[in-house]
Formats: sequence, C-alpha cells, structure tokens
Amino acid sequence: MAEATTRRRGGGGAARRAERTAVSIETAKFIERNIPLYEVLNDEALEVIEANAETILEEVGVNFVDNPVALDRWREAGADIDGERVRIPRGLARKLCSTAPSRYTQHARNPERNVEIGGNTLVFAPVYGPPFVRDMEGGRRYATMDDFKKFVKLGYMSKWLHHSGGTVCEPTDVPVNKRHLDMLQAHMTLSDKPFMGSVTEASRAQDSVEMCEILFGKDFVQENTVMTSLINVNSPMTFDDVMMGSLEVYAKNNQACIISPFIVGGAMAPVSVAGTLTQVLAEVLAGIAYSQLIRPGAPVIFGAFVTSIDMNSGAPTFGTPEASHILYGAGQLARRMGLPFRSGGGLCGSKLPDAQSAYETAHTHNAALLGGVNFMLHSCGWLEGGLVSSFEKFVLDADQLGVLHHIARGISVDENAQAMDAIREVGPGGHYLGCAHTQANFKNAFWRTNVFDYKPFETWSEEGERDSMTLANIKVKEMLANYQQPALDPAIAEALESYVANKKASMPDAFS
Amino acid sequence: MAEATTRRRGGGGAARRAERTAVSIETAKFIERNIPLYEVLNDEALEVIEANAETILEEVGVNFVDNPVALDRWREAGADIDGERVRIPRGLARKLCSTAPSRYTQHARNPERNVEIGGNTLVFAPVYGPPFVRDMEGGRRYATMDDFKKFVKLGYMSKWLHHSGGTVCEPTDVPVNKRHLDMLQAHMTLSDKPFMGSVTEASRAQDSVEMCEILFGKDFVQENTVMTSLINVNSPMTFDDVMMGSLEVYAKNNQACIISPFIVGGAMAPVSVAGTLTQVLAEVLAGIAYSQLIRPGAPVIFGAFVTSIDMNSGAPTFGTPEASHILYGAGQLARRMGLPFRSGGGLCGSKLPDAQSAYETAHTHNAALLGGVNFMLHSCGWLEGGLVSSFEKFVLDADQLGVLHHIARGISVDENAQAMDAIREVGPGGHYLGCAHTQANFKNAFWRTNVFDYKPFETWSEEGERDSMTLANIKVKEMLANYQQPALDPAIAEALESYVANKKASMPDAFS
Repeated sequence: MAEATTRRRGGGGAARRAERTAVSIETAKFIERNIPLYEVLNDEALEVIEANAETILEEVGVNFVDNPVALDRWREAGADIDGERVRIPRGLARKLCSTAPSRYTQHARNPERNVEIGGNTLVFAPVYGPPFVRDMEGGRRYATMDDFKKFVKLGYMSKWLHHSGGTVCEPTDVPVNKRHLDMLQAHMTLSDKPFMGSVTEASRAQDSVEMCEILFGKDFVQENTVMTSLINVNSPMTFDDVMMGSLEVYAKNNQACIISPFIVGGAMAPVSVAGTLTQVLAEVLAGIAYSQLIRPGAPVIFGAFVTSIDMNSGAPTFGTPEASHILYGAGQLARRMGLPFRSGGGLCGSKLPDAQSAYETAHTHNAALLGGVNFMLHSCGWLEGGLVSSFEKFVLDADQLGVLHHIARGISVDENAQAMDAIREVGPGGHYLGCAHTQANFKNAFWRTNVFDYKPFETWSEEGERDSMTLANIKVKEMLANYQQPALDPAIAEALESYVANKKASMPDAFS
Repeated sequence: MAEATTRRRGGGGAARRAERTAVSIETAKFIERNIPLYEVLNDEALEVIEANAETILEEVGVNFVDNPVALDRWREAGADIDGERVRIPRGLARKLCSTAPSRYTQHARNPERNVEIGGNTLVFAPVYGPPFVRDMEGGRRYATMDDFKKFVKLGYMSKWLHHSGGTVCEPTDVPVNKRHLDMLQAHMTLSDKPFMGSVTEASRAQDSVEMCEILFGKDFVQENTVMTSLINVNSPMTFDDVMMGSLEVYAKNNQACIISPFIVGGAMAPVSVAGTLTQVLAEVLAGIAYSQLIRPGAPVIFGAFVTSIDMNSGAPTFGTPEASHILYGAGQLARRMGLPFRSGGGLCGSKLPDAQSAYETAHTHNAALLGGVNFMLHSCGWLEGGLVSSFEKFVLDADQLGVLHHIARGISVDENAQAMDAIREVGPGGHYLGCAHTQANFKNAFWRTNVFDYKPFETWSEEGERDSMTLANIKVKEMLANYQQPALDPAIAEALESYVANKKASMPDAFS
C-alpha cells in the first residue's frame, strides 16, 4: 500500500482540523485475489468451444486487411493464405500463443504504482474512448482536453484505481493527428500511475514509445513493459491494418497489448453465448498468435468486450445476463491458455448515473471480479454505452472498486477472526459495540463508502434530500480542488513538452 | 411457465395494437439453477466455524425467554437448563435438525404458482416489514392498507416474482392487533401467488392457519405447506416468546418457517465475518432443532439476515463486501446441513431509488444468486435500510429479477447454440443481423428489460431526459391501471370476509 498524505500547514486546532480534512492520494495496491473464481462452463463445454474455434480458424479463417507483411508472416508460420484470408491449421495458433507470458509487470514512473497483470491479480483502469462528457452542470457535450485532464486528475486521486488508463475521453478540440501527444503528456505529468499508449495509427504508437523513452529512459523501455494498449479486433474475424500496425510497434518494443474482440452479440457474433464465445476464442487465438509472430514473448492480454444487442431497438445493452455468461466463459478460456484476461468494467447503457446505470455496472463489476478478469478497462466513468465519460459516475464507480477490493480479500478464519472470546464475553442478549474484540478490530473490519449517503433520514432530509448523482458531483469538485500534481524531474517534463511541441509543428492539423 | 394474457377487444389494426400493448400477468416458474454455486470458504474454514458453533451452544448456550414449555422440551431432549439459558451438548442440535426436509413445496391457491424451496431452486418474495412507503408524488409517509394492497397488486403483476410475500409494508392505519387479518385477506384475494403468515403473536399465527383452512380446505392445510413465515432470532442467541409462540403454531401445523438470525454485524455479532458466521450457525442450529422438537419433519429454512454497521455513524449498511462474504459462507453452512437457505434480497441503505440503491441491491442480488439462496425475501421494493417500501424500486428490482432468471439458465452448448453454421455463413467482415440462425433465435436469445431506457439519445432527450426513477414511476401507474383481480370462488371470498369481520369484532383496537 503506497501512501502519500499531504497536510495543510497550521498549528494546534487548525492542524488537527487540517489532519481530519487532509487530502488523501493514497492508492491501493492492485488486487491479488484471495477468493476462488466462478466457473460457469464444465470441461466438456469448454472442449466443444475450443474445438469449434480451431474449426473456424482452419475452415473459415480470418482476414488481415491491407497488410501484406502480416500475410507473409502467416505464410511462413504455416498458414494457408488466400487473398487476405488466413486459414490456420488446427493447433497452430494455440501453439504460437504459448510463448506469451502468463503474467507481466507494467511499470509506472512511481514504482509503488507498478501493476502486475495475470494470475490472481486484478488491475482497475478507467473508461476509455467516449467522444462526449457529462456532468450535472454542463450536461452532455463534446469532450475537450480540459475534460481529459480533469479525468486524469480524478483517476490519480482515486484510491481504488490502479491505472490512469488511455483515452479517458476523446479531446475533440485537439486535431485528431495530434491529440495522442497531449493525452500521453497528461498521463505522464498529471499522474504517476501506469497508462496506455495510442493505437490510432502505427506512427502514434511509435510516438507513445518515444515519449516513454523520455519518461523512463530508453534502455528501461526496451527491457520493461511500460504501456498496456488496446488492440480491438474488427469482429467478425477481421484484423485491420491500423490496429495491426500499432500492435506491431508495441510487440516489437516489448510493450503489452490487449487483443480484444469488440462484439455486439447478435450483430458481430452469433445470437448465442456459446457461438459468441467460439468466435471470441478464434479471434483471440489468431490475434495473439500474430503478436508472437512479431516477437515471441511479447506480453499480451486475452480480451473480450462483448455486449448484446436489444433486438427491439438495435441498441447495444450492458450488464445483461448474457454479458455475464460470456465474461465467465471467456475467463475460463483465457485461463486454459494461461493468459491474462481483460473484460468487464463499469458498463451500462443508461444516459444518466441513475439506478439503471448502477444495476448494470454492478452486474459487470461482480462478474469481472468472480470471473477472473486481470485487467478491467472502463472500471469507472463509463456512461451511455461508452459514448459518454461521466464525471459523477467516475466517482461513484471508483468508490465501488473498493467493494471489489474487499470482497477479493476473502474471509480470514484466524483466531482473531473467529472472535470466540467476544462471543463468550457478550453472551445471549448482550451487544458487541463496546467489547474488547470490537474495539481492537472495528477500524479495519468493514469497507466504507467515500460518497454514498449513510446519514439518518432527518439529516439527509435537512440537507436537501440529495441523491447519489448530487453527492458525487460534490465529490468531483472536492477532488479536483484538492488535486496536487505528483513531482516529476523538471528536465523530463521539459523534454516531454518539447517532444510534443516539435511533433505538433512537424505536421498540419487533421480533424478526421 | 404459467401464462394468462388478457387482450383488449377490437378488430383489425386496433386488435394488433391491443396485442402489442396487452396486459401480461404471466409469472415465471421459480428458478431451478442450471449453474454452479460460488463457494468462498474451504472445508477447513467451514469445519472451524462448525466446531466453534458447537462450542457456543455447549459452553455459552442460548436463551429461551418467557417460555417454560420450551425449556421443558429442551430438558427432555438432553440439553442443560440453567434459568432461561439452554446449553446444548455437542452434536445434539445438529442431530435434531436432521429430521427437517431438504426441500418442500409451498402451495399457492393457483397450483401453477406453487413454489419449491430447497436444493437447486430460488424463489423470489418482495420486501417485508417497512413502516413507511415512498413514491415520487407522495414522498416518504407512513404506510396504509391502501398502499399494502397496491404492493400486493404490483407483486401479482410482476412476471419474475414468484411469491406475494407477507408484510409488504406495515398498514399503520389498521389497529396492530387486526392488521394481520387485512393483510392476509389481501394476499389471498388480490393475488394467487403463495404468501407468508403472521408472526407478531401466536394467536395471529393461529388466525393465519385458520384463514388458510378457509382458502385451501382444512385437510389440505394439514397435509400440505401453504405458508412460509419469518421467525427472527433476537441476536445474540435469544429466542423470545412471541417469535417462538408463532413458530410453535406453524410447526405444529406443518407450515414452514424461516429461522433467521437478524444481525447488524459489529452490534449484534462480532465485528468479523468468521465470528458472525459462527454465531449465525449456532443460532440457526438451536432454532431449527427447536422446530423439530415441536414436530419432527416440520419444514424450515436456514435464514441469515446480516448487515454490517457503519462504525462512523452507527448506521446499518447494505450491499457491502462483508455482507457478500457472510451470504456466501452461510449458504455453504446451510448446504452442509442439507437445508433450504434464505438470505439476500434487494437490500440497500439509500433513501431514494438512485445509483447507491442499485449498486447495493445488485451486489446483494448477485451474491444471493451465486451463493445458493433458495428463498429470497426483500427481493424487490426495499429502500432505506428496510424502513421504506418504495413503489418505484419495487418495479426496478422486479425487472432485475429477470436478469437473475436468465443467468441461472446457464449456457447451452447444443448444436443450435454452437452456431457454427452462422459463423460459416457470415464469415470475416460480415454481420449476423440477417442470417438464418439469428432469425431463428433472436426472440428468446437475450433478456430484455421492461423498464430501463434503451432509446437513442435524441429520443430520450426529446422525451424529457427521464431517469430510472421516473420511468419506474410511469410503470407503477401502468401496472396498477392494468391490474385485474384473479378469480376466486365467491363462497371462499365471502367466508374470508366474514372470518375477518368476526375476528375484528371480537376484540378492541390496539395500536401498540
């Protein structure tokens, strides 16, 4: 547990008050689960899905689009190439995947914030990708770089969030060919948590690597993983040149990628859970095998971003039972490959951080915790099917990540936890509030919210009957007001600044 | 699956419109889980807790208050009696519990609504006990009999709710010694789902049995279980004469009881999960053993209603990680006794059906589903720590019970679900919306909400940017407007009416 509590100046009563209201920028260590996982599929079902995925790769194949080098790599590895179609003999993709590590460390510039991804770990990263933001005052609007910085600051201030993420919102006021530079600079300077690189063009992935070389040192980057970036598969079974170009850059540089089929079930995969899992597995096998053709041993994550479609309206839906099924099943498939697993998050379809958004989010959070997710993107702030980054929901979800932390701790049955002395001391009809065991243990016994309302009805009523969104809005302002930038070597900060300025000056603005 | 869809009259276009908007009073069959359970404790931990529970019963004992007959029964069974303290030799309580059935049928007056409780089943019953109600128009206010009837009607109209419950709210406008009569009459006449009996005095339990004899016939009641009623233990380790008096009536008449420690952890049990589980088990062992002393084979449920206390404010909290731990652990203990298990529900501490209420509710719902709950009281409508029955939350939660139904179905891997033909048909880069497999399966493939918003942003915005509470409020009104009373033999309805009238006339009003 890394702690860095800043205190305001002052003496006597002022000092005590300051201590009570001190800004906490404590960050919890990534989760190491001390609880069993939940497995919904039996071995027979898993074997059916695995056999079918091999059949898809062998008979149907996958497309690598506009990427002759990739086709050459596959041909050389033993695949059958027909135009852009790659058909992979049974077992070949799985064999190629076997060089990928089962667990890796992603370094942060503050080593106390390093995360390990794989095995029994669970790392939380915030929402990724929305073009809009929403808050109570401003409603829904296009995201700007100013919003982006606010989300990075909120992420830095969030105790249960381990990772600064990537595109926490799309800064639409910065040219599309330059915004990755500002985004990376913000993650590198406004936070000291680990972050993600750009994937919107191979050259931008290269820029991400070079900026990391400034931040971490060139040798360090070549020897260590300092980014985990998101490579989506164009489902069904299509690997486009933009995503593959970025994957190539990252894999060559030993940087981690999530290979993630992005599926709205019923549209981009069959309208059945087993069929969708089969396609997910085939796509991940092909994508990860390709990463290992670029550089055997390059760190990768088995990704599965799967929602289902509302067959009445065509809208993607989140937090549904089918999504939970797919998450549990995909986790089992990932573990059978010995690979880190990415899925879940605070996914919801609601337009507001209301009851719908919270039901849907909590379903996804719970399934991800028990389903063995190692890297949870979108763990806080996601709204409206990923179109919106919500300030209030960011804070509400980030608080919920504490619930997952505490569930993951498991149940101690040591002598203190057995509490037999307390039960003997209190006896029938007594109460435990004052007993020795309670006094010794109450401070750390129970998880406590940082944003929910636990007040008596009368107090709550006098204070204006505020709902969760309103309380979260207050918390957002408080966190941003209390934000303090983590220290960074000024020479590094300057070098990043001039790298960004030079890159920006080297090309005209592009907005699409 | 019982279906009874009423249709409005009309021809042509009107008939088609009517069909689309037809009132559905379809009720899903109780859940038979086709998924594995989640077990958080290993055998060693379970054995520690079980051994400690026996130690509590043997060394500390439990109190049976103001109940000399109970003390006689215990003495005769081999317990050590000291004043009101009952100390139970190791193994005796567990042995006595072994005559309780592992599964039983609770009959409804409509046999299609019968529920089975135990084994792999899960039965949903609504909120129980709040003195207040809340809705958007009226805010928070004392509950009345009119409110009570509305909740019974909503329960009857809720597709995923199997059980009409008991005190869906406390009708505070009816004298306390008479309200059980009105409540039972409402369940019996406004719904045809199974229900719960009164437990607030032995005489009221007796009235409940007699009203059931009118509804089901005297012989039927003696041979079958037609009520499942809630017997709370006064934790720690105290069995009061009111609750035990009701238990005695029900057990004698072969009616089911939930023996449920009611615990705010940290106050009524130790401030640790393992200690709380130990006390829960000791209390349940004593209570269920006592039920079997009254009538061996009487149906009972292992209950555990456990929240934790917020150590800052003293408020009870819900949906916490500790509550999930206790639920999972208690479920394991119940299964090792071979008994049906009650826990969970839509528990929350929030004052409004907002994001907090939904996060907390969803945590509890998920833990209950995976933790092996057989009877889920408070599954919908619970607000503000159980002080309030919320109309809007009733509808939101009841919709969520559909999510649990669909998760419980598990994942099919039959040939149709494998969807290999669809994957072959669509191929890389295609889409599945129009393919044969989608056309054949889309109608039943995915769960769909009945109350959430899935609309495009623009439509949602034009319609007033309504949140979940507002949408639920509309749904409440729609359901109450469309309610149609299930048919009941008029002679039975009259007999119930005159039983209630005679009972009420036989005693003065009491308001405390």
